[in-house]
Amino acid sequence: MAKKKTGTESSPKKGKNEVAVGVVGSGSFATAIVKMLVENCKVVHWCVRNEYVKGAIEQRGHNPTYLTAVNFNLKNLKLTTDINELVSACEVIVLATPSIYLSDTLDKMTCDYKDKIFVSAIKGIIPKVNGVVAHYLRDEFKIGFRNQAVIAGPCHAEEVAMERLSYLTIATVEDEVSQKLLDIFNSDFIKMHSSKDILGNEYSAILKNIFAIGAGIASGLGYGDNFTAVFVSNAIREMETFLEAIYEAPRDVNQSAYLGDLLVTAYSLFSRNRSLGNLIGKGYTVKSAIQSMNMVAEGYYAADSIYKTSKEKGLKLPIVDTIYGILYEGKNAEKQFKKLTAKLD
Amino acid sequence: MAKKKTGTESSPKKGKNEVAVGVVGSGSFATAIVKMLVENCKVVHWCVRNEYVKGAIEQRGHNPTYLTAVNFNLKNLKLTTDINELVSACEVIVLATPSIYLSDTLDKMTCDYKDKIFVSAIKGIIPKVNGVVAHYLRDEFKIGFRNQAVIAGPCHAEEVAMERLSYLTIATVEDEVSQKLLDIFNSDFIKMHSSKDILGNEYSAILKNIFAIGAGIASGLGYGDNFTAVFVSNAIREMETFLEAIYEAPRDVNQSAYLGDLLVTAYSLFSRNRSLGNLIGKGYTVKSAIQSMNMVAEGYYAADSIYKTSKEKGLKLPIVDTIYGILYEGKNAEKQFKKLTAKLD
Repeated sequence: MAKKKTGTESSPKKGKNEVAVGVVGSGSFATAIVKMLVENCKVVHWCVRNEYVKGAIEQRGHNPTYLTAVNFNLKNLKLTTDINELVSACEVIVLATPSIYLSDTLDKMTCDYKDKIFVSAIKGIIPKVNGVVAHYLRDEFKIGFRNQAVIAGPCHAEEVAMERLSYLTIATVEDEVSQKLLDIFNSDFIKMHSSKDILGNEYSAILKNIFAIGAGIASGLGYGDNFTAVFVSNAIREMETFLEAIYEAPRDVNQSAYLGDLLVTAYSLFSRNRSLGNLIGKGYTVKSAIQSMNMVAEGYYAADSIYKTSKEKGLKLPIVDTIYGILYEGKNAEKQFKKLTAKLD
Repeated sequence: MAKKKTGTESSPKKGKNEVAVGVVGSGSFATAIVKMLVENCKVVHWCVRNEYVKGAIEQRGHNPTYLTAVNFNLKNLKLTTDINELVSACEVIVLATPSIYLSDTLDKMTCDYKDKIFVSAIKGIIPKVNGVVAHYLRDEFKIGFRNQAVIAGPCHAEEVAMERLSYLTIATVEDEVSQKLLDIFNSDFIKMHSSKDILGNEYSAILKNIFAIGAGIASGLGYGDNFTAVFVSNAIREMETFLEAIYEAPRDVNQSAYLGDLLVTAYSLFSRNRSLGNLIGKGYTVKSAIQSMNMVAEGYYAADSIYKTSKEKGLKLPIVDTIYGILYEGKNAEKQFKKLTAKLD
């Protein structure tokens, strides 16, 4: 890992990387990414949601709402609420807002961004275009795939906060971009691997949220571990079917970025998608389940988009169909899961 | 599902199947299998370990030690401690002892068994021959693969006891045998699918116990959910490598019998293999960890056999190597896992 040594840097960490990198977003995963980057980078630019969040971080040294236990050295941060200031200052821009808020931020981008590298850490559908971030950036901002990357892999922000070993995958087509990103992310607790499958990694991260809602519903309905194992084993096969239909590429869905991410989301109690499903399984209406959570469950929006895409492509995805019916057609979770059990194997 | 209706049967269940079926073993999985079978069969023959267990079941209507909440109607059971009595009376014999005790039982088999169907529900290596049950039955007893079947799939006995929906796979080469077994196992809470991959199903059930010990060690050492997801995603790929080397067949390791079984064992708190690993990860010596558990962790024996086979075949299985080193070579779990983390992706 070729890291530039600065020598004169007064920071406690040696070998600081001088790539100008910025993070957009102030939720838990954005905060986790800033934490990863300050391990390696002299300065991390951070565009947060509003002046309150900016002021709170400047005052307390941590995000006031998410991963509050992660304390930053303010010398390593350059905070802003202005997307143009961040993009202008950075070579690499990591997008880490909830998917539904991304266009609110990027619509304000008027600076020159044509040589910048945009890295999506967003695992959701952009409602404005009903598509993934990679397509949204390409179609709305003319940012080509050569200037894009996707961060994937099983990674609960809460565990990054605790510096528990996590493996991430960076998907990008350019080797030079890949190496640059590996250098700024790899650390004692982050092992970053590379991939060229931008769309596969992005869609799998989105699909797994839908499946996690399903695992949660099953649990809420009282299905046990035996069933969950069958459910997840069917889910990874549905994922493979979908990915092959969307974008054929040499991929093994059992790699960590695909299966691993599905597992961590479907099995972990940190998962907000699983929690949403669990409430629905326990009898909450979809509306009240969503209201009772103060975080966005990306899988809710994803289910609508992925369902429609699967129908356009003529795919058979019984789990996706089931979750869509429960979330959007008011169908009864218990009855729908009973029907689903006959389609699994 | 063609079930014979008996009409005159006084049992509470309708449609009783008249196949003469017996179960050998009195542990938790054997008891769960007897529970599955009494759903469909007029009488289930049951060869238990000794007179104490037989007497206790006859007196109390349940196994005195395992799944004690499962109450049987004694009219449906034909208990014995004599393997010859059971085999002579039955057409289908389900073997469900711990692997290390199977030969103690079968060595006493002197009756004619050449037309019987032997179904292995054992997920372990037979120490006497250092091989799987399918090979042991073939080599030691001249029971050909056409008279054999393997039961696989994610199935904690404890959940069967609670009648939680579980999916099993029956692997056998003969369609007629397959149909007969589907008929006697399928019920409201058991969905049985068929496969022809006897060896693949048997080896995967054995491998997953080794991986579950590993997942437990990781947990005991303090690795989190992010790491476990990566570990399991590497484990299923190791499983595929091993199965392809042992017996090439058209199989998808993401089916429930392979991946599902790995998941339920690696993630569930019911798993004794995971529990053994957890103790070792927390600092127990291997010997004291084994002594503190009063159930056999099949993965312990499996690790030795699978490791040696993998070396003979020249396979690279970093997880199997790591577990073997910890269990059999006295290597330090923390150090070995630190090394392993560099080999996973």
